[in-house]
Amino acid sequence: MEPDVREVRVWRISEGSAGGVDDVVAREFPLTIFLNDTELVTLLCSPTELKSLAVGFLQSEGLVTAATDVKSVLVDETRGVVRVKTESGTGRMDEVFRRFISSGCGRGATFYSAADAAGMSKIESPVRVSSGEVMSLFKEFQQRSELYRNTGGVHSAALCNSREIIAFAEDIGRHNAIDKVFGRCLLDGVSTDGLFVLTSGRISSEIVLKAARRMVPVLASKSAPTDLGVKLAVDLGITLLGFVRGKRMNVYANEWRVN
Amino acid sequence: MEPDVREVRVWRISEGSAGGVDDVVAREFPLTIFLNDTELVTLLCSPTELKSLAVGFLQSEGLVTAATDVKSVLVDETRGVVRVKTESGTGRMDEVFRRFISSGCGRGATFYSAADAAGMSKIESPVRVSSGEVMSLFKEFQQRSELYRNTGGVHSAALCNSREIIAFAEDIGRHNAIDKVFGRCLLDGVSTDGLFVLTSGRISSEIVLKAARRMVPVLASKSAPTDLGVKLAVDLGITLLGFVRGKRMNVYANEWRVN
Repeated sequence: MEPDVREVRVWRISEGSAGGVDDVVAREFPLTIFLNDTELVTLLCSPTELKSLAVGFLQSEGLVTAATDVKSVLVDETRGVVRVKTESGTGRMDEVFRRFISSGCGRGATFYSAADAAGMSKIESPVRVSSGEVMSLFKEFQQRSELYRNTGGVHSAALCNSREIIAFAEDIGRHNAIDKVFGRCLLDGVSTDGLFVLTSGRISSEIVLKAARRMVPVLASKSAPTDLGVKLAVDLGITLLGFVRGKRMNVYANEWRVN
Repeated sequence: MEPDVREVRVWRISEGSAGGVDDVVAREFPLTIFLNDTELVTLLCSPTELKSLAVGFLQSEGLVTAATDVKSVLVDETRGVVRVKTESGTGRMDEVFRRFISSGCGRGATFYSAADAAGMSKIESPVRVSSGEVMSLFKEFQQRSELYRNTGGVHSAALCNSREIIAFAEDIGRHNAIDKVFGRCLLDGVSTDGLFVLTSGRISSEIVLKAARRMVPVLASKSAPTDLGVKLAVDLGITLLGFVRGKRMNVYANEWRVN
């Protein structure tokens, strides 16, 4: 049994008949992150790649900026705890606490009105991608989504270049899946500058900001974007693709990179 | 133009051809809730039913317990602010702030290990529902999901009895959609005791807890549950249905209510 699924007994009703069957559902695991001995957050996640998730989450929140900033990451899977120690200490944590409070999900309202306010610079990467390459990447992306096939209840995310997938993760949360692939790259010392993000999930403003923070010029999803997601992608120079399905896709922002 | 969608110009690639088309995407709106003049949270939501959303959210967080508790709800749509005044004051807000901090999304880790810890009592409602009724309800549920059909980027939620839908809402967030229907019922003085929840979204632990808090005995989703969602539903006496699609459905907990 994989750690990310659990067997359950289900009463299945189908076309008039009914009966008990064994099935699997995705696990939902509370993971508490301590940063420099201070409790920061409890994420509900799929219990895989916990180290990547913790580091990726901290990077998304601006609490870790580079691999050299991470002194140690200790995972206690039994207790559902990750302890991260950083060089930069807890200086900015107060600010992040306040943002959690004022936004409920570490999703700062300050970000939404103007991309500039987030202190992020426009992505100027000259990288390009063809629609055929996007289709091939999504084909591989969906083939890798095993947990989704088994449980129907998780999201996938990948980092790739125009030819191949470099990091892949699944999680019950679309945010977590993306934090996991970024966290893995950070821990492995792989630069994400110029890489693409593939996701199964909706592209809201928060997802675009996660990509912008890592200098990702192309963000592609099987699902829909929101209007704020599109606006931020336009302003931040990110090429935004949605509804990538089979041989179809919509380009919502910076289509000059797609040929 | 509906307030919950925005027109965008899209570059559409399909089967080898490409061209610009007009399309609509779901809006993503930051709504800041003030409770008794203190800033509580900023939700990212679809900008409809803001009053219901604010009250439903506060009820989900235990900050509003009954309609009589709500003194006033003032919505300032231009500024994206809702001001709620309650009889009970801000006594419990400190606790909720702490929970936001320790859980990132108002999703308390304390809840997950045992349903008892959440202080919720088991739902003993003798109400029953047939699989045929569930199918009919879901047919109507999906017909009402207009915003989803237009944008592909939102969730729906409904409150119903075994015969008809009583409240329906859509939102870019699955949590928000459910808070909206509960909030509407609270504002309208409609008891939710014995009603069912229908949702397009995944059933995680948090969704089961929202239902349990309102004495909802049946929770049905088009999507998958998580293992914690199933465990809580079993413990709290909630009948949990997943993958309700056409003439099929899975019953994950308390199947005695389904006949």
